Amino acid sequence: MIILGIDPGFAITGYGFLNMEGNRFKVLDYGVITTEPKQIFSERLLCIGNDLGMLIEKYRPDVMAIEELFFNNNAKTAIQAAQGRGTAVYEAARRHIPVHEFTPLQVKQAVTGYGRADKKQIQQMVKILLNLDSIPKPDDAADALAIAICYGNSSKYSVKC
Amino acid sequence: MIILGIDPGFAITGYGFLNMEGNRFKVLDYGVITTEPKQIFSERLLCIGNDLGMLIEKYRPDVMAIEELFFNNNAKTAIQAAQGRGTAVYEAARRHIPVHEFTPLQVKQAVTGYGRADKKQIQQMVKILLNLDSIPKPDDAADALAIAICYGNSSKYSVKC
Repeated sequence: MIILGIDPGFAITGYGFLNMEGNRFKVLDYGVITTEPKQIFSERLLCIGNDLGMLIEKYRPDVMAIEELFFNNNAKTAIQAAQGRGTAVYEAARRHIPVHEFTPLQVKQAVTGYGRADKKQIQQMVKILLNLDSIPKPDDAADALAIAICYGNSSKYSVKC
Repeated sequence: MIILGIDPGFAITGYGFLNMEGNRFKVLDYGVITTEPKQIFSERLLCIGNDLGMLIEKYRPDVMAIEELFFNNNAKTAIQAAQGRGTAVYEAARRHIPVHEFTPLQVKQAVTGYGRADKKQIQQMVKILLNLDSIPKPDDAADALAIAICYGNSSKYSVKC
């Protein structure tokens, strides 16, 4: 089963593709889709959707796992990130790929077994669980891999969204 | 020039297509795309994107005008509406249709000449400016037509987004 994990955003969208066989993970690819403040808004969404669409066509994931967005202190940033997330979910839905969402707490618990783990601990666990030589960079890519692991480890409890 | 106005949302997305020749408007179509709470989240975005995509293919607008979203008191609703808006903008961007956005204040001023106009006054002006027999229903469709009028009346000041 191929799992696509997404750390949603607007300036930076993290992605990670894992192949899961039994309870073993193999990393297929990970990285970030970045958009620039100098681009106009609609072009930034187009960039997120196009780039993600090409990656989906390449790796043909069976499922997308994505983190839920919560409102943060900056309303403008939250509204922009939500539009980027909507574009990512829509790109999966257009291809009839089921989408499952997780809270940050669920991701932490699934990856480290500990809901109060910090960012560094999660990244260390991602490195260990995926047999990588170093922590995946940038952070948003590591987060996306953590979300994919979360789906792999707890898909039987997860809710399709 | 064909203008598509969008009142963005998640449960209800209003749309209105106007043909503008010189400074005269002709209504081509208006209505709402509705999604149901019983549908899963990704299917609701798919519904917004698919339905809007079909309307865009039918009327081939030269431009999309859409209202800016502001954070309201309900964070969950705002995050959902933003994802619906992102899907709508992305559907236009995918077809290389320029997208212009307006604040609610800009729409009020462009339609009524008065920034503190209420909803009823805006709807009355939409009816008058578009030579309609009655106020377009539902409200979200009337709002979408107001946004399209706003672009038509003030496109030289508007900012592509």
